[in-house]
Amino acid sequence: MSDQSAVTVIGLGPMGRALAGAFVRAGLRTTVWNRTPGRDGELVELGAIRAGSPEEAVAASGLTVVCVVDQEAVGSVLRREAVTSALKGRTVVNLSASTPAKARDTAEWASVHGVRYLDGAIMTPIGTIGTPTAVLLHSGPKDLYQEHLPVLEALGGTHTHLGEDPGRAAAYEIALLDVFWTAMAGYAHALAVARAEGITARELAPFATGIGAILPPIFEELADGVDTGNYSGESNPITSAASSMAHIIDTSEGHGIDSGVMRAVEGLARRVIGTGHGTDGFIRVTDLLRAEAAVR
Amino acid sequence: MSDQSAVTVIGLGPMGRALAGAFVRAGLRTTVWNRTPGRDGELVELGAIRAGSPEEAVAASGLTVVCVVDQEAVGSVLRREAVTSALKGRTVVNLSASTPAKARDTAEWASVHGVRYLDGAIMTPIGTIGTPTAVLLHSGPKDLYQEHLPVLEALGGTHTHLGEDPGRAAAYEIALLDVFWTAMAGYAHALAVARAEGITARELAPFATGIGAILPPIFEELADGVDTGNYSGESNPITSAASSMAHIIDTSEGHGIDSGVMRAVEGLARRVIGTGHGTDGFIRVTDLLRAEAAVR
Ligand SMILES: NC(=O)c1ccc[n+]([C@@H]2O[C@H](COP(=O)([O-])OP(=O)(O)OC[C@H]3O[C@@H](n4cnc5c(N)ncnc54)[C@H](OP(=O)(O)O)[C@@H]3O)[C@@H](O)[C@H]2O)c1
Ligand SMILES: NC(=O)c1ccc[n+]([C@@H]2O[C@H](COP(=O)([O-])OP(=O)(O)OC[C@H]3O[C@@H](n4cnc5c(N)ncnc54)[C@H](OP(=O)(O)O)[C@@H]3O)[C@@H](O)[C@H]2O)c1
Repeated sequence: MSDQSAVTVIGLGPMGRALAGAFVRAGLRTTVWNRTPGRDGELVELGAIRAGSPEEAVAASGLTVVCVVDQEAVGSVLRREAVTSALKGRTVVNLSASTPAKARDTAEWASVHGVRYLDGAIMTPIGTIGTPTAVLLHSGPKDLYQEHLPVLEALGGTHTHLGEDPGRAAAYEIALLDVFWTAMAGYAHALAVARAEGITARELAPFATGIGAILPPIFEELADGVDTGNYSGESNPITSAASSMAHIIDTSEGHGIDSGVMRAVEGLARRVIGTGHGTDGFIRVTDLLRAEAAVR
Repeated sequence: MSDQSAVTVIGLGPMGRALAGAFVRAGLRTTVWNRTPGRDGELVELGAIRAGSPEEAVAASGLTVVCVVDQEAVGSVLRREAVTSALKGRTVVNLSASTPAKARDTAEWASVHGVRYLDGAIMTPIGTIGTPTAVLLHSGPKDLYQEHLPVLEALGGTHTHLGEDPGRAAAYEIALLDVFWTAMAGYAHALAVARAEGITARELAPFATGIGAILPPIFEELADGVDTGNYSGESNPITSAASSMAHIIDTSEGHGIDSGVMRAVEGLARRVIGTGHGTDGFIRVTDLLRAEAAVR
């Protein structure tokens, strides 16, 4: 059984600071370390303990939460003799972004060195940490997850254990960030086009949030069809979507605005139409992308 | 003053049928016509009147709502001698997708031929028509809009008059469909990647709807910064976003899945970083795209 009153946080970027802050506020003895010094000022004022080195940091608690930019950064902090031996028998919960393959590789390293390991992902912005709206995903040994859940719950929100495969949280993360960053690119581009048409971001925003609001029910509604191979375009055929995409490209490029993202989207739609599925819905693009993967 | 009890609908695709159905249900004398015969069966059963030709259709009501795939289709129906002369002194509300330039061109044609003209856009799926969640945008003469609003309100939802410029509704539509179709492309791609990782659409959907739900407040929050040139990445720097994008590309392509859309998105992020703005947020992409338009 691990000590449930102490935790170490490695990585004090915006997200790491939010995590450490939530742990401190929950009354946990919270030790912090960051590669570049000086990021822990407010945390120490709040009651966090500054460690002088990563090995000192991980030795201070049975549980270390790592939140740095990627797995290369994780490796450059943890995969050093002094840190690895200090971690022996302790737990690492790695909340840094990752690919499934790299998460499995880190899990393998941990296993070889007697480090207990969970790989997770944070799916909501820093403002949600410590509140009910945070969403955290976890994968790895279920009993290890259950052991540390009481401490992790100081971060607020909903925690989901997705399976024993340490790459599973990263697989969900990849897919969900795909939705997120692609949508954000659509918004960034829309704001540029709107501006060229004399529409401010403030004017567009209420309508853009309206578009954002119709996405969740559409995502939900399409899921079963995708699993069963039903891509009906009865209510909105992909030919109609492709026509709208052409309008977007035409208008953007008419203003000199790069449309590489929408050109790539339209290309997928045109290929679905070209392969004889013009009366299907846009979501048939999933099938096109999958089929390529299968053909490999 | 126009007769408020009659309306004609031209175009009986999924959306045109939804519009005509809502008019019939609201008790309006609804005349319908579609290029390809046989789309009006259910509507006629419901009480709609089948016109034998577009000229007969537009002559039946003071107000004609046109909802076809694009402005070329609008032109091929309306810009014929018999139809144009039948429309003289009557009103067309064109709810077909358009670019601002083409909407202005159709308005110009209408003006030359004594046709009263409003250009609009429907921003929600067919299921919303006739319900409070429909969102319709309009542009053109304000008094004409106000005259026909009582009939248009049979379509339900929120109607917004965006200005006298007939291209304004199309400009909003372009920007909003940019957000919508780009986000949908993200979801379609995410489902393909998830599948390759052994995750079904049904498993991913609840988390994807969670991502959808965080978009509206983020869109809202970023708008003022974009208008004032404040792209702070304090809570989430674009370098971190670019790293996540690289993970998505790596994982997708590792499964043989095309990542053209995300490659285009990452390209924009890398260019923002390359021009020295790596500590800004991803939304700085708007500035990059705009700057190019300005430099032209
Ligand atoms: N911010 C958000 O809204 C958000 C939301 C969900 C998930 N996340 C995830 O949370 C993780 C952390 O994100 P963040 O927002 O805090 O910012 P970030 O820019 O992704 O990460 C910054 C952190 O990574 C560290 N780092 C980078 N390279 C390193 C290296 N080679 N060795 C050691 N440390 C290194 C930085 O240390 P230095 O200070 O020394 O550079 C800093 O602590 C990321 O994986 C991100 O995807 C963030
Ligand atoms: N469906 C939605 O969820 C949705 C949501 C918002 C906005 N909209 C917009 O509503 C409009 C109509 O969309 P939709 O969903 O009904 O399907 P659509 O596939 O965009 O349009 C089909 C309609 O266009 C007609 N059409 C196409 N080419 C034509 C031509 N050259 N001459 C005459 N008519 C022609 C079709 O007639 P035929 O039957 O003879 O082919 C049919 O009536 C589009 O602008 C779309 O962007 C649709």
